Amino acid sequence: MELFDSLGYVITICGTISFAISGAFAAMQKRLDAFGVLIVAFVTAVGGGTLRDLIVGDTPVFWLKGANYSLLIILTALFSMFFWKKLKSLKITLFLFDSLGLGFFTIVGLQKGLSFDLSPGICIALGTITGCFGGITRDILLNNIPLIFRKEIYATACIVGGLCFFLLSYLGMNIALVEIISVIVVFVIRIISVKYNFTLPRFY
Amino acid sequence: MELFDSLGYVITICGTISFAISGAFAAMQKRLDAFGVLIVAFVTAVGGGTLRDLIVGDTPVFWLKGANYSLLIILTALFSMFFWKKLKSLKITLFLFDSLGLGFFTIVGLQKGLSFDLSPGICIALGTITGCFGGITRDILLNNIPLIFRKEIYATACIVGGLCFFLLSYLGMNIALVEIISVIVVFVIRIISVKYNFTLPRFY
Amino acid sequence: MELFDSLGYVITICGTISFAISGAFAAMQKRLDAFGVLIVAFVTAVGGGTLRDLIVGDTPVFWLKGANYSLLIILTALFSMFFWKKLKSLKITLFLFDSLGLGFFTIVGLQKGLSFDLSPGICIALGTITGCFGGITRDILLNNIPLIFRKEIYATACIVGGLCFFLLSYLGMNIALVEIISVIVVFVIRIISVKYNFTLPRFY
Repeated sequence: MELFDSLGYVITICGTISFAISGAFAAMQKRLDAFGVLIVAFVTAVGGGTLRDLIVGDTPVFWLKGANYSLLIILTALFSMFFWKKLKSLKITLFLFDSLGLGFFTIVGLQKGLSFDLSPGICIALGTITGCFGGITRDILLNNIPLIFRKEIYATACIVGGLCFFLLSYLGMNIALVEIISVIVVFVIRIISVKYNFTLPRFY
Repeated sequence: MELFDSLGYVITICGTISFAISGAFAAMQKRLDAFGVLIVAFVTAVGGGTLRDLIVGDTPVFWLKGANYSLLIILTALFSMFFWKKLKSLKITLFLFDSLGLGFFTIVGLQKGLSFDLSPGICIALGTITGCFGGITRDILLNNIPLIFRKEIYATACIVGGLCFFLLSYLGMNIALVEIISVIVVFVIRIISVKYNFTLPRFY
Repeated sequence: MELFDSLGYVITICGTISFAISGAFAAMQKRLDAFGVLIVAFVTAVGGGTLRDLIVGDTPVFWLKGANYSLLIILTALFSMFFWKKLKSLKITLFLFDSLGLGFFTIVGLQKGLSFDLSPGICIALGTITGCFGGITRDILLNNIPLIFRKEIYATACIVGGLCFFLLSYLGMNIALVEIISVIVVFVIRIISVKYNFTLPRFY
């Protein structure tokens, strides 16, 4: 766990930052004012974990328990507003962080489900919610149909990562290893699906 | 209670299924991908009960306590995607299930309010939320103004059903009977209002 | 506290009423039916406090604990629908109530944060959420990009009021006085920013 925790700590920060940046960018494109950009960045970064904490009943929700999260997001949002031109050129780096964050948030959510003795399927759902809901709220606030519903393998990556988590645990693999592998699975599926522009089928 | 419970069990399933189908259809009309259809179906089916559980503080919310709900909804959504042509021809059957589900969900929500010792008016509000919020979320996710705000007697049916529940209980009628009658009241009001295209007044 | 409490009681009522009216008006402009107007008025009035109670875990949320709130809002909404022409001429009065309500709701939210031993920054965030989220939900339900993200100093007023609350408390000022001053600060900033049409900067 040690390794994973410190590793996890770093990746959560990277994930939070890049989720916040993606929110800030979307808000700037809709020409919101500074506060609007801040809020959308915040919601994008904490939305998933907040819904997770609310529905399992783990309140106060995680970002209320200390100001560090909020501070990190506020700084990221301000940074995005001042250096958005520079950040645009980092698109790929951001995408990589975002995918890593997605993977890590998924496993964090899944583990919270386990700590509440919820069934595997439900834990995977919680992981997926943790990873995806922030982006959904961002799109709702900005009055778009959530992107996730229209393009790319996104939630699917979380689900597969979650399945892989349970599969490997049942095979009795070391838990820290299981966690790291699952994060990587989400990450890789996400990367590949975007690179080769995979999409889910439509039935109509 | 016995009768009502088993009856209730069947109707909840029918209601959940038809709520899920209505969500899946709305999502397919907006051309969401398979996952989007799944999520919208899910949210439409559990949205009302989830908000109810959150605001009364009964967490983990009901659909986290077991995977059956989620499974039922996932299967329903997949089914809708593959057999949507056939389902279109079942429009009336679906509408009947939907109205029954509305009635039952209303009474379930109302009773949860009673179990938390909330006042009658609040219980009716909870019942209405349980019946209606799923459809509201569906419309928000799909970027429509919630249909319920623009057409048909929908929430009104829940409210009248709730009033009838308390009226009959105060008259000392057998509780199981009260529950069944209230469900039927919601059901009938809904049917009639759609058949004769009743709408609520506007004041402008 | 005495003075503030009774004062607070009056102002909460005024704030609730004018938040409800603003919701009702927005809904009527979108031509929702009577029920839609009712719901939007309700959500606008209680939305902020509801989210606050949910994320700190203080459930059942405040408006479930008694029917008074709901009754007040329902009456206000009905009143708005019947007398909307007259109310339009009261625009400035309503704006003043709304700003007072904003100030008071902010301090109420901030104090709930304190009662849960949350850190100052988080308490200010809670106050801002309490003051602003109702309007955000109103705009989402009506399928607009939340106004607050596009125009005027709104949340900013809450934040400054919150900062002033902590500043004055640290200076050891009498708490009741601190509360009143903070409410006035929010109120004044809001008035001035609208009068001189201040807006937050955009960075693009």
